[in-house]
Amino acid sequence: MNEAERLATLFEKFPGIGPRQARRFVYFLLKSGGEYRSNLNSAISDLANNIHKCDSCQRYYANSNGPKCGICSNTARDPKQLLIIEKDADLDSVEKSGAYSGYYFVLGGRVKLTDSSGKLPNEQLLKKLIQNSQDLEEIILAMPTTTEGEHTAQTIITALKPIADERNITITMLGRGLSTGAELEYADSLTLKSALESRN
Amino acid sequence: MNEAERLATLFEKFPGIGPRQARRFVYFLLKSGGEYRSNLNSAISDLANNIHKCDSCQRYYANSNGPKCGICSNTARDPKQLLIIEKDADLDSVEKSGAYSGYYFVLGGRVKLTDSSGKLPNEQLLKKLIQNSQDLEEIILAMPTTTEGEHTAQTIITALKPIADERNITITMLGRGLSTGAELEYADSLTLKSALESRN
Amino acid sequence: MNEAERLATLFEKFPGIGPRQARRFVYFLLKSGGEYRSNLNSAISDLANNIHKCDSCQRYYANSNGPKCGICSNTARDPKQLLIIEKDADLDSVEKSGAYSGYYFVLGGRVKLTDSSGKLPNEQLLKKLIQNSQDLEEIILAMPTTTEGEHTAQTIITALKPIADERNITITMLGRGLSTGAELEYADSLTLKSALESRN
Amino acid sequence: MNEAERLATLFEKFPGIGPRQARRFVYFLLKSGGEYRSNLNSAISDLANNIHKCDSCQRYYANSNGPKCGICSNTARDPKQLLIIEKDADLDSVEKSGAYSGYYFVLGGRVKLTDSSGKLPNEQLLKKLIQNSQDLEEIILAMPTTTEGEHTAQTIITALKPIADERNITITMLGRGLSTGAELEYADSLTLKSALESRN
Repeated sequence: MNEAERLATLFEKFPGIGPRQARRFVYFLLKSGGEYRSNLNSAISDLANNIHKCDSCQRYYANSNGPKCGICSNTARDPKQLLIIEKDADLDSVEKSGAYSGYYFVLGGRVKLTDSSGKLPNEQLLKKLIQNSQDLEEIILAMPTTTEGEHTAQTIITALKPIADERNITITMLGRGLSTGAELEYADSLTLKSALESRN
Repeated sequence: MNEAERLATLFEKFPGIGPRQARRFVYFLLKSGGEYRSNLNSAISDLANNIHKCDSCQRYYANSNGPKCGICSNTARDPKQLLIIEKDADLDSVEKSGAYSGYYFVLGGRVKLTDSSGKLPNEQLLKKLIQNSQDLEEIILAMPTTTEGEHTAQTIITALKPIADERNITITMLGRGLSTGAELEYADSLTLKSALESRN
Repeated sequence: MNEAERLATLFEKFPGIGPRQARRFVYFLLKSGGEYRSNLNSAISDLANNIHKCDSCQRYYANSNGPKCGICSNTARDPKQLLIIEKDADLDSVEKSGAYSGYYFVLGGRVKLTDSSGKLPNEQLLKKLIQNSQDLEEIILAMPTTTEGEHTAQTIITALKPIADERNITITMLGRGLSTGAELEYADSLTLKSALESRN
Repeated sequence: MNEAERLATLFEKFPGIGPRQARRFVYFLLKSGGEYRSNLNSAISDLANNIHKCDSCQRYYANSNGPKCGICSNTARDPKQLLIIEKDADLDSVEKSGAYSGYYFVLGGRVKLTDSSGKLPNEQLLKKLIQNSQDLEEIILAMPTTTEGEHTAQTIITALKPIADERNITITMLGRGLSTGAELEYADSLTLKSALESRN
């Protein structure tokens, strides 16, 4: 296997990239010149040195002076709310909406439908975060509204119920309804039911 | 133009059907035999004789003994609510959800973004229905959550405001939120904001 | 089942039409008014009265004074060539190309991969046509270039070999190569091989 | 801009990669661990050191002991044929087909429809290669069968006509026809015409 093939094999591991596109990336790098390649190399090297996992919410963040990310170390945010999301990209979406000002926890995965062990990804880190959040009043589950997302939400509820009951913390879920661009004709019954209930 | 071409031209008027599929329909009818064709013919003829527009909600309905459809003549439904939808297919979706027990009105179209005349399709019929609904307390707008749907909803609100104010009728809209199958990463900010507000 | 549902059930039999689009066709007919519906009805009735299967090539044709279609009764066409195609729509495509001036035979189906009986659709009609074509020198197989199409072509060759050998008729197939819009990168090996062999 | 954003910006330059997938690549690299990242880094660095442009055909190749790639330095190939293709990936496809045993030239781009200058990418290198190919009898143009590909082919013909005439070299193009998987019904007229002409 030559260098081009070795690099293509590594690119094939990228999410959503098949053998053909991996090879196209290699041709692109061959054509793109030494400066671009060395920029790419140094950006990849710098990544690990400068991007860290936040001790608190478990998201990746940059340029910190401490073990917590900018959101978790921001004391102006609302300590009464904790939003549990699946992955960093979901957190980016919620922050971009500007509609949430509490803290976050990145679960780092879903619970498969076939997995009824009750175990969560990052479970101990989540429980430790809740224990350290003295003012917490509400945990908001923001899982995808798929069957796997709902199974994950149920598993979280089961795992957190004892501590939530003990400390009087409410567990809520994001509201269902018509998403932007929806047509009534194609909406499923559960979505319509939620949209009717949450009419305003 | 021969008979096959004449029929294809008529099929091209069907919603979503282009010239190629129209011709395929003709070949299908040629192959499908005389019994199927005469069944189709009599079903088309019977349609107009047996399906009528409801005097009240303006939807099409079958086999009635009077000028009102089965929903509008059902006195067990909730007379305090009126749901305004765009078209019959939307009404079918809401009925299928089982989540609504009031009455309906089929607007029969949207108001185009370029149309600021304030005129609604079926406007007089809608106002007459509201006047005849003595117990009405809430009008629910169930327009698509597109820019055109929102413009239509605003036009309805403007048109109905005087009568709603006078009779103390609330005008509401279906709730926004995460629809079934949604992934947080791809949700737009308005949907996330609504989903956070209507969390439960 | 009411008239609207009965008609929708008939539309669901149309090629490529599911329950939702079938219902949309019914709503379209309800809205489109009596004149359109009666035009559609008479066009469907006229179809069977005016469109016939050609005795010779087995395609559907209109307005004939005899049992043969316009192509088969056109003595100016080349009697040395017979093109075997699967269905009427394929014949339309070839005629539109203007590249062929011989006669046709519509096979009316493919031979499934699991069918090794050697039987062809319309086999007797095809053999009769060849027997009646005194000047025939070449039979051109124009099957789709799928595995099923190739299996059908092989079955035709086996079925016609005796008569072709006896009467010294050549059996050919349409040439393979790069179709319009093709990119070399995505072309399969067989296509590239054919394209190299038929370079010009 | 932090390291994650800087890397995402570089990934956005990859062919076919938008901002969202670029960010997903960054998260993937963050999660994938140090060993994978350092493998990727060294593979990118090695690329430039070990992959060279062939002096003769202009493709990228690896591990050579000289300035020519494995194909161009293989004296067992047919010196009478030269195939001109657009890019390395096209060459890979043709080699994989096993249907060609002559030499290659990678043009490295297309001529835009709006470009009527008659200039070719790599024009001087192509002419030099032809001058150095004493036994050359045929130049095969293997451009995509798009309007841009055909314009590129015409520009090549115009550019090479003098030298081809002088040295009695034929210029050919890959054959058109039905590609694998084609259905007659959807084939365009030019493809059908070519398929009829190259029937066999």
